[in-house]
Amino acid sequence: MTAVELIEKKRDGEALTANEIRWLIDSYTVGTVTDYQMAAMTMAVFLNGLNAEELAVWTDAMMHSGEVLDFDLIKKPKVDKHSTGGVGDKVSIPLVPMVAACGVAIPMISGRGLGHTGGTLDKLESIPGFTASLDRERFTSILEQHGLVMAGQSESLVPADRKLYALRDATGTVPSIPLISSSIMSKKLAEDLDGLVLDVKVGSGAFMKDEASARTLAKTMVGIGSAHGTTTVAYLTRMNEPLGHEVGNASEIVESIAVLRGDGPADLTEVTMVLAAEMLMLGGIEDSTDAANRRLEQVIASGEALELFGEVIEAQGGNRHVIDDPSLLPKASHRFEVKAPISGFVREVDALAIGRAAMSLGAGRETKEDSIDPGVGITLNAKTGDSVDQGAPLATLAFNDHDRAEAALPFLREAWEIGEAPTRQELIIDRIDG
Amino acid sequence: MTAVELIEKKRDGEALTANEIRWLIDSYTVGTVTDYQMAAMTMAVFLNGLNAEELAVWTDAMMHSGEVLDFDLIKKPKVDKHSTGGVGDKVSIPLVPMVAACGVAIPMISGRGLGHTGGTLDKLESIPGFTASLDRERFTSILEQHGLVMAGQSESLVPADRKLYALRDATGTVPSIPLISSSIMSKKLAEDLDGLVLDVKVGSGAFMKDEASARTLAKTMVGIGSAHGTTTVAYLTRMNEPLGHEVGNASEIVESIAVLRGDGPADLTEVTMVLAAEMLMLGGIEDSTDAANRRLEQVIASGEALELFGEVIEAQGGNRHVIDDPSLLPKASHRFEVKAPISGFVREVDALAIGRAAMSLGAGRETKEDSIDPGVGITLNAKTGDSVDQGAPLATLAFNDHDRAEAALPFLREAWEIGEAPTRQELIIDRIDG
Repeated sequence: MTAVELIEKKRDGEALTANEIRWLIDSYTVGTVTDYQMAAMTMAVFLNGLNAEELAVWTDAMMHSGEVLDFDLIKKPKVDKHSTGGVGDKVSIPLVPMVAACGVAIPMISGRGLGHTGGTLDKLESIPGFTASLDRERFTSILEQHGLVMAGQSESLVPADRKLYALRDATGTVPSIPLISSSIMSKKLAEDLDGLVLDVKVGSGAFMKDEASARTLAKTMVGIGSAHGTTTVAYLTRMNEPLGHEVGNASEIVESIAVLRGDGPADLTEVTMVLAAEMLMLGGIEDSTDAANRRLEQVIASGEALELFGEVIEAQGGNRHVIDDPSLLPKASHRFEVKAPISGFVREVDALAIGRAAMSLGAGRETKEDSIDPGVGITLNAKTGDSVDQGAPLATLAFNDHDRAEAALPFLREAWEIGEAPTRQELIIDRIDG
Repeated sequence: MTAVELIEKKRDGEALTANEIRWLIDSYTVGTVTDYQMAAMTMAVFLNGLNAEELAVWTDAMMHSGEVLDFDLIKKPKVDKHSTGGVGDKVSIPLVPMVAACGVAIPMISGRGLGHTGGTLDKLESIPGFTASLDRERFTSILEQHGLVMAGQSESLVPADRKLYALRDATGTVPSIPLISSSIMSKKLAEDLDGLVLDVKVGSGAFMKDEASARTLAKTMVGIGSAHGTTTVAYLTRMNEPLGHEVGNASEIVESIAVLRGDGPADLTEVTMVLAAEMLMLGGIEDSTDAANRRLEQVIASGEALELFGEVIEAQGGNRHVIDDPSLLPKASHRFEVKAPISGFVREVDALAIGRAAMSLGAGRETKEDSIDPGVGITLNAKTGDSVDQGAPLATLAFNDHDRAEAALPFLREAWEIGEAPTRQELIIDRIDG
């Protein structure tokens, strides 16, 4: 078997055999298949695709390129959740303790990546002392003891994906459904799960701008999960405007705590509850959405979910008192309000523009080397459907650097569309299962 | 401009601008665009193509990646010939002195490449002392003095092609019409020509197995030539069986000399005359095929063409006496005859099988490091249309190594198809001009 033969097959639209795919991924991981050969192969995959059988093997080969976790000793059902990412998407932070408080174990492993704001781990690391860098032993012990853990990906997990992602990023093959799906699923399936819930975001602030591609991505990932024997359910959820009112890092922790107290913003709470309920059902804890919702409302009302969040913060080295005292979190030194130029109803708050503004403030990373400023961010004072009076605040910027705030303003001034009548779109677009 | 942006454009089927293509080729030549980026780009080009405008600029940018020759001081018309290559294709060797003897200057530069037998230069280098490695000064001086020169490509000529060809070879993007065309034409156009004749081979022994792809390749190269302002004419010629009776290196020199004496085999002479006549017309020496043919017959009958071949051999360091005494050329130590298993008419001699047999004997190169054995080869005693009696010789192997001869035999035993009625196919399929 040679790399050229396999590239030629895929180039000519043929399917690769299971043996060929395993040989390719293994050889690429150890470096006997070169970066330039894999670049030609991924472009051929981008343009000619992978069928369902190829994709299942490709994902499995990626997963087996490194360590695969084994949580046999944990008797609870293990379910995780993954989001394709959006602006203000902090859903995992309240969701994980809520679901864990109901008896599901969640071994959540996230990448950091690049984005308009930090990822879940960066947001959590805005909590003083909190670390997402856990060795295998500590990771397992926190999971066993508390039923939840939220950590970064270790070097030994799916090394093929780290290598392949960097290559795709440099060679124009990132937005390929089979390559995205296998990248996400290889990492999630390496977590030894009983079930997986996927939140596939659709809209201006999401990677997938249109519903058709998001649906294809969702179906593809659900198919990979099924082929692997891990029940996987995907939700298509709207990401035209940011989720919640806060876009930043520390500020999103504050808002997550509000959800855990039962007084979070409606949209954020809705998405969190839908995904959390699905996880309870996948974990076999409840067998109907109604029962799952009641159970989740209980652990919120009783304070168990919030208490568990405090516990895991402490277990991961953080100051658990942030759950009662948000002033312990980093805060930006300056504020500035963007005001409504006219009165009317907010018809749209462009998530992408808000994301770019947050990036300008320093809330996100443009390159891997960038550091995140955890205290900066944007508070949305008016969201879609709200009525605003001329001169009322649309957004409040929290910033540390005047130049960066200046750079953020043009994005914010264009983000709001104000019209005469209110609009409303469903947040949850569809549920897709195997 | 970034490599990723350009890869994405081509990936999505868009056309690249002239500036983008020039930047890409220049950056790849100096190495700021990496091999893995160019591998993704060439796969995108393979699958999405280049339009005529892109291809003209791509070729021009390749040509300008290194030195471009300038023969302004040579007052004769400069015309060259290029063949896409076939088994037993020694046409250039008799053609160049014939055409030069009629007053056309031919600055022929060839690559060596890989193949079933050596290339034109390897065949010439079977002449004792002959060298195809000439520096610029010697190249130009031989061309000025004799009106012809046949040399290898220097490092400084089209470096982008050397780099890109090696990459394509390792990444499954060799058989792409735009990439083949630009590779060939960038090297030929760097020779500062007034005209170019292309021999595009079609058939089992050629790179292009079917007439449709050969026609597309021919039209594409003619289009590039026209866009560059160099009148280019392509011929589609058949390559189902080897050209002439000799397949090897030294043996093909002997057969080339026969053509120059006017007693070469019919098929080889026919192709040589057609291409040579076209070159005389492109060079403005004659204005009709009939006149050109008469002129060519004259320089053969008078011995001028053969004499000029002797001169250039001597100018390039070789022993000119080979033209009168073929025993000065290397010869293999052993012979073996393959005999006809039945009587009948030869319906086919599979060029690819003969090529593989020649490669097995050591006449060609499988890798760049392989050395060629100049004395080995195959003499075809019976070709398509010939009648043979059972037990009569079909081929004679000249070999130095018994194991290699053993390895060649199975190919030879399958190469001849003998049937009841003779067949005949036209050798010259078509002529394509701008």
